[in-house]
Amino acid sequence: MSDVDVSALTIAVLGGTGPQGRGLARRFAAAGLEVVLGSRDAARAASAADDLASVGRVRGTSNAEAAAAGDVVLVVVPWDGHRELLESLADELAGKVVVDCVNPLGFDKQGPYALPVEEGSATQQAAAILTGSRVVGAFHNVSAVLLEDPSVTSIDTDVLVLGDDREATDLVQALADVVPGMRGRYGGRLRNAHQVEALTANLIAINRRYKAHAGIRVTDV
Amino acid sequence: MSDVDVSALTIAVLGGTGPQGRGLARRFAAAGLEVVLGSRDAARAASAADDLASVGRVRGTSNAEAAAAGDVVLVVVPWDGHRELLESLADELAGKVVVDCVNPLGFDKQGPYALPVEEGSATQQAAAILTGSRVVGAFHNVSAVLLEDPSVTSIDTDVLVLGDDREATDLVQALADVVPGMRGRYGGRLRNAHQVEALTANLIAINRRYKAHAGIRVTDV
Repeated sequence: MSDVDVSALTIAVLGGTGPQGRGLARRFAAAGLEVVLGSRDAARAASAADDLASVGRVRGTSNAEAAAAGDVVLVVVPWDGHRELLESLADELAGKVVVDCVNPLGFDKQGPYALPVEEGSATQQAAAILTGSRVVGAFHNVSAVLLEDPSVTSIDTDVLVLGDDREATDLVQALADVVPGMRGRYGGRLRNAHQVEALTANLIAINRRYKAHAGIRVTDV
Repeated sequence: MSDVDVSALTIAVLGGTGPQGRGLARRFAAAGLEVVLGSRDAARAASAADDLASVGRVRGTSNAEAAAAGDVVLVVVPWDGHRELLESLADELAGKVVVDCVNPLGFDKQGPYALPVEEGSATQQAAAILTGSRVVGAFHNVSAVLLEDPSVTSIDTDVLVLGDDREATDLVQALADVVPGMRGRYGGRLRNAHQVEALTANLIAINRRYKAHAGIRVTDV
């Protein structure tokens, strides 16, 4: 556990109406944090927030308003559109800790695979665009199915937190730590984000083989 | 646990005089398997085998003779030289299950990072060269320090086994299962090997941050 206190932070979730975004919002709200869901469609975000009203403090709005409202801003949008969204929100995100959670994956008949990314990884693309923000990568390998399931009280997984800014990675580790079962662990520099994003393809393959909702634990830490 | 019986197999370890090769040899020998260490320098392999004589059945020889002797052949050589070694041993390795364990990594002042590989990964490079072999990727993320430490009786890690040949991946999973604490788990197709190899850079960064010998467990499988 970290000694960083995140309890007073507002967490914005861009792309907050998808399964992963909704699931993370649910868990942070359940831990008592204030959550703002963002979406291209503010009404859809408001509706998704309403669905979480019994869990905690969640409201929904546009991606731009959510970005402006968040102390920490999670990017949980589809890879297709990632660059454009971040370019459009660079001003709102300036000075903030931005957590990229996006996995650039493709799917074909043989299953999932990692897509090449010009900048090396989604997280590095975010860092290249958001030069005024403190960009961290995290929450790549967490099962949306488990996050969204109200009957799951503990998420048995570690969250690898990637970044070159120690204060920012410490904060995001502490954010992961608020979810029961989850542990935030430093996972390396931004330049080593690609393989953590891409590993989600392996976890999807594992899920198909074993009929599971696989996660990753780091041993001996 | 798998129901594949590997107890009668001879395991060859190419590059068997390095820490990872010696460590894997130690564990398979301790589990009762016959092990043949290969090296460019047969005398060095023989010496390394002597050091493991009290553990089990281990002998040392040239890489070519080890490749010919093994039922399953582990490739644990440095990345620099990987291509040339496999090209030189394609005949000896024909028809066999070849397990690539190599992590193409670079190191600089900022620590470890994943190297780009033309074929996508070391495992895919092996598959491209060894068209007559059954190439699998595995044992990428196992700490050599733990493998080599006789006082460590259980290796707390999973081994992700990557490949497109189900019988071969099942066999290598069973091979991982013979080491106490280790579990062999299917980890995806060959095309998803890169990120598992590259993840070793993250584990090295984690080891440095936490003063640990980190491994990976897959949850819910």
